[in-house]
Amino acid sequence: MKLYSYFRSSASYRVRIALNVKNLSYDYVPVHLVREGGEQLKPAYRQVNPDAIVPTLVDDDQHAIQQSLAIIEYLEETHPEPPLLPKSPLDRAHVRSLALQVACEIHPVNNLRVLKYLKHTVGADDATKDAWYRHWIESGFATLEARLAGDPRTGKLCYGDTPTIADLCLVPQIYNANRFKIDTTRYPTIQRINDYALTLDAFARAEPGAQPDSE
Amino acid sequence: MKLYSYFRSSASYRVRIALNVKNLSYDYVPVHLVREGGEQLKPAYRQVNPDAIVPTLVDDDQHAIQQSLAIIEYLEETHPEPPLLPKSPLDRAHVRSLALQVACEIHPVNNLRVLKYLKHTVGADDATKDAWYRHWIESGFATLEARLAGDPRTGKLCYGDTPTIADLCLVPQIYNANRFKIDTTRYPTIQRINDYALTLDAFARAEPGAQPDSE
Repeated sequence: MKLYSYFRSSASYRVRIALNVKNLSYDYVPVHLVREGGEQLKPAYRQVNPDAIVPTLVDDDQHAIQQSLAIIEYLEETHPEPPLLPKSPLDRAHVRSLALQVACEIHPVNNLRVLKYLKHTVGADDATKDAWYRHWIESGFATLEARLAGDPRTGKLCYGDTPTIADLCLVPQIYNANRFKIDTTRYPTIQRINDYALTLDAFARAEPGAQPDSE
Repeated sequence: MKLYSYFRSSASYRVRIALNVKNLSYDYVPVHLVREGGEQLKPAYRQVNPDAIVPTLVDDDQHAIQQSLAIIEYLEETHPEPPLLPKSPLDRAHVRSLALQVACEIHPVNNLRVLKYLKHTVGADDATKDAWYRHWIESGFATLEARLAGDPRTGKLCYGDTPTIADLCLVPQIYNANRFKIDTTRYPTIQRINDYALTLDAFARAEPGAQPDSE
């Protein structure tokens, strides 16, 4: 398998954790999102991923799969053990909804191209852009904290004590929050889950600082 | 089943189509996103959905499921026929990635609360806000058009001739595009898929204009 990834991309980070949890080896193909205006925008990469974003997974040398959650569900279906989703449909829905709350409500609004548009087209200054970034993480984390703290299914991780796709989305989002110096101690359940997850080898090996293109 | 929905919410619209495709009857509980500052923000609804967004599905009178794609995957698992996903993992990944491209790249950036923040906190005027809205639809549709037009799996609908979750996400997004008078004839494959989908009873009955809270 081949993974097109950028060390700091939190969507790539999600997939790296999934591959590690499932003990799958893969070739790491770095795509630098900033250098020369962004390698993801060049024709060579657009051939692989027309939407010009990372990650992309190529499994069979033919079909490139884009969108991190589609990739993770694909890995779950093709390599079911160890599972990244619980068994019962209601619990699967719970875990998917936690993952999607990060992937649909927090992350996209703070995506690189959105921040660029905010700055260059809307004309927001850096302070406004930073406040924007923090706002979506802080409001999203407040909800997630309430959901996780109030649910008996929460364990050492988002659902019980073994990794699920909810953790795969949450941990990279906390990495982003830390980069922007957001005080995550206000979200003790989230913080506790993150601290525990990062003691696990599958998460530690997926961290941005451990990637070949890390700076 | 009980669906908390707003007639114009495209995430609600996705779930309505799913319920109709699977011939499931449900109680429609309207949540007005605009009136009195938004009913979704009131404590009564936050009890149901802490993130204060629609839709929410309550199936067993106990567990409320939020996030439209988590709801749709839940319906797919609990009521597999007719299926909303193909059989092979690669094709499922393809369909999910089309759905997620709408659900993660286009829709969240144009969400009501994002537009409110853009206007009231960033201070964008109406013209800037409208241009923002169009930009994310137009750039997203350009990519989707290229993907769909170039893929042999595309049929009368996004994947073959029967509805999948990709169509469930695409058709409501086109409804949004039409509201903002975006010229969708520039995306002929998307346009053709939408025109065909709306001839199907499951899609027609899910349209905003056909809902009890339609205005």
